[in-house]
Amino acid sequence: MPTQYGTIDQSFLDQLVELTSKERVSTSQALRDQHGTDESYHEAFAPDVVIFTHSTKEVASVVRLCAEKKIPIIPYGTGTSLEGHVAALHGGVCIDLSQMNEVIKARPQDLDVTVQAGVTRKALNEYLRDTGLFFPIDPGADASLGGMASTRASGTNAVRYGTMRENVLSLTVVNPKGEVIRTSSRSKKSAAGYDLTHLYVGSEGTLGIITEVTLRLYGIPEKVTAAVCPFPSLEEAVNMVITTIQCGIPVARIELLDDRQMYAVNQYSKLNYEVAPTLFFEFHGSPSAVDEQVEQVKSIAEDFGGENFQWASQQEERDRLWNARHNAYYAALALRPGCRGVSSDACVPISRLAEAILETKKDIEASFLEGTIVGHVGDGNYHTLFAFDPNDEKELAEAKRLNARIVERALVMEGTCTGEHGVGHGKMKYLEDEFGEAGLEIMRSIKRAMDPDNIMNPGKIVAL
Amino acid sequence: MPTQYGTIDQSFLDQLVELTSKERVSTSQALRDQHGTDESYHEAFAPDVVIFTHSTKEVASVVRLCAEKKIPIIPYGTGTSLEGHVAALHGGVCIDLSQMNEVIKARPQDLDVTVQAGVTRKALNEYLRDTGLFFPIDPGADASLGGMASTRASGTNAVRYGTMRENVLSLTVVNPKGEVIRTSSRSKKSAAGYDLTHLYVGSEGTLGIITEVTLRLYGIPEKVTAAVCPFPSLEEAVNMVITTIQCGIPVARIELLDDRQMYAVNQYSKLNYEVAPTLFFEFHGSPSAVDEQVEQVKSIAEDFGGENFQWASQQEERDRLWNARHNAYYAALALRPGCRGVSSDACVPISRLAEAILETKKDIEASFLEGTIVGHVGDGNYHTLFAFDPNDEKELAEAKRLNARIVERALVMEGTCTGEHGVGHGKMKYLEDEFGEAGLEIMRSIKRAMDPDNIMNPGKIVAL
Repeated sequence: MPTQYGTIDQSFLDQLVELTSKERVSTSQALRDQHGTDESYHEAFAPDVVIFTHSTKEVASVVRLCAEKKIPIIPYGTGTSLEGHVAALHGGVCIDLSQMNEVIKARPQDLDVTVQAGVTRKALNEYLRDTGLFFPIDPGADASLGGMASTRASGTNAVRYGTMRENVLSLTVVNPKGEVIRTSSRSKKSAAGYDLTHLYVGSEGTLGIITEVTLRLYGIPEKVTAAVCPFPSLEEAVNMVITTIQCGIPVARIELLDDRQMYAVNQYSKLNYEVAPTLFFEFHGSPSAVDEQVEQVKSIAEDFGGENFQWASQQEERDRLWNARHNAYYAALALRPGCRGVSSDACVPISRLAEAILETKKDIEASFLEGTIVGHVGDGNYHTLFAFDPNDEKELAEAKRLNARIVERALVMEGTCTGEHGVGHGKMKYLEDEFGEAGLEIMRSIKRAMDPDNIMNPGKIVAL
Repeated sequence: MPTQYGTIDQSFLDQLVELTSKERVSTSQALRDQHGTDESYHEAFAPDVVIFTHSTKEVASVVRLCAEKKIPIIPYGTGTSLEGHVAALHGGVCIDLSQMNEVIKARPQDLDVTVQAGVTRKALNEYLRDTGLFFPIDPGADASLGGMASTRASGTNAVRYGTMRENVLSLTVVNPKGEVIRTSSRSKKSAAGYDLTHLYVGSEGTLGIITEVTLRLYGIPEKVTAAVCPFPSLEEAVNMVITTIQCGIPVARIELLDDRQMYAVNQYSKLNYEVAPTLFFEFHGSPSAVDEQVEQVKSIAEDFGGENFQWASQQEERDRLWNARHNAYYAALALRPGCRGVSSDACVPISRLAEAILETKKDIEASFLEGTIVGHVGDGNYHTLFAFDPNDEKELAEAKRLNARIVERALVMEGTCTGEHGVGHGKMKYLEDEFGEAGLEIMRSIKRAMDPDNIMNPGKIVAL
């Protein structure tokens, strides 16, 4: 039975102001609209009110008020999600955590750091600069670390360092009753009870609000080298990646861009890379370890016709290279000004990657819509981007059809419907295929048990 | 309200036989006694009946029968747990999975393998021998992989390869209704829904029965070298470890044994190591990477007075060395024939490790009971072993008192009450201190939602 949500009236708004301040509670249309949309193609749903919190305690007090009145709550970081995660499907209060941007404590001796949820990954690495440590997870967007934990984000460095799943040590969470929970101790391992940390990582605000994140840190590698190498065909590029992974070479980044995406990148970032299926690499380690990896990778690449490595050892050159890669989404959109994008996101076991990507490329070639392929291919994770004209219904329908084919193909190949973008409300329909009805029912039972009134980001991940 | 459990009568036993076979259902006293006890000091509680299953389907049918009659179910692997995990506190059916010992599929191309839950870690590595791959998690005992997943086990290799938490890719689970669930796809990463895999890893049979495990595999390192090195003091040995970890050196194993433990090991394994606080190391990698690590570690060790490295490069020498380490528990027990052991297990952030261990040593020195210290110190995880005379109540009381002090100290230091042994029923009392009442209530709500009749290994992790 769906929850009967409460009404947001002036007295409720006054109470929000009382819990924070007048300046931090807003019902302005522009701000609400901005908070009801992410970077995806999904329809916007504005919340009724946006509140900017400054502490876990404030979040807890707002949640308690909302719980009492049965008002939906949508947590908001930087709004860079891609499956409608922040859409206020049932209205309610958007809790914007971006002003909770304090690094609470860095502990170089323990290789960890605790931050407020609104600290972005770039701000964290800026803060850490003089410690010799860094936080590697890099989804491209300068997302908040709370948001990245909530969506189990990953990105280009995951092939070596893992995703948020592997790098969140502990969380402070406000549960749907407005109580504050610490999901685990700071010890590196533990066998104490159910794994609440991993339950909250990827729960997209549906079980509570992450207000603080304790993350693993890594020593900045003594040597970092990046390279770009074109390949004669998409198949050879992907097979090169598969071999590299199967050989266990600890590459830090290994990214694929197809020919069309390289064209877009050249246009957008004013570069002149060869327009061919291309791999971007990065190697981390001691000088001798990096040299060893580079030799192995060059030798594998040669077997697949990849010979023109362009190297970048200096920070500045590497930044240029990775900026070009990170802007791939915007570059592909810029091919058709005024268009919006549908970004697919699938992940398969590495042995199936060539088949998955080549069939996807065929789908694109057979469609009237243009699309590009990019991928964190070392993890078996790849995206397509379809730019569609928002005034042309046929184009959006075609983009959705192609997106569905990509997901279904991944599921047949023992893969997942989302490698890193998450479920939001855009991919809920695929969870039953992926987990079966009994698996999905476990997820529903957890949601019902932990949030019986369904106030936490309702309508995402599981429908009650 | 506690569940009113059903009664096990002849008709129920007949139904169990019908689901399996006469030979695989037993009510013999000896077999029941053996299945109601683990390797710990906790009191034995025999189940009413033991059933040996051969497939996920059989497990599901047994669970459906038990669910219908509200009969408690206790899963059993090899019985090597240490906190009373297999004690049938409310009687019921013990499902022994040890005959589910088939490797279902190894996929070297994907660096993963799927096994039935009863396959032990040694049997798996034996099976993998010709593939060039191995599974690194090594808790000492030759435990079943289902049991290791259930208890979130780790051991000596975790400092480099992580624990079961990091190495289980997916599980097949029979839920408390007798339905079969696959917790995730085989893709290396996923952002699809709640993380059921991690919810089941470490759930100790209280949310369902793990029947199949898909694990990550690693290439056998080109070079492996082990070493043993004594130190002038416990403090210097531990500080050497802390520095090594803080420098980010990817040692595969780094184990501490205190002087008393070294004495016990010498006696038990007929060796003649120096009786001093000692570190056991292992290094994995390419020849140049191993050489680099060895040089770094030797140089750090020197700073802490560790100079007498004894090296072991050949498989046979390494096996002897690690067998001595793995038998530490039995060696300490053998110092007092006829005694049983209380093994403590705590884990703290690495920066607090020296303080934690030195205070523990003081506790031991101040006690009338003898104790030894061993530890997977690279992770901040350490154990003490107290051998007590089962006919002397004072000794057991003292061992429990010391154990409690170790746990409380770890919690004050932002550590955990159990690094790897798990909760069972022996450590339930510490979970509220570690997670707070609100955190513990989340665990209870999950248990109630997923197992409303409390039939799955009742009385473990959380009390309902």
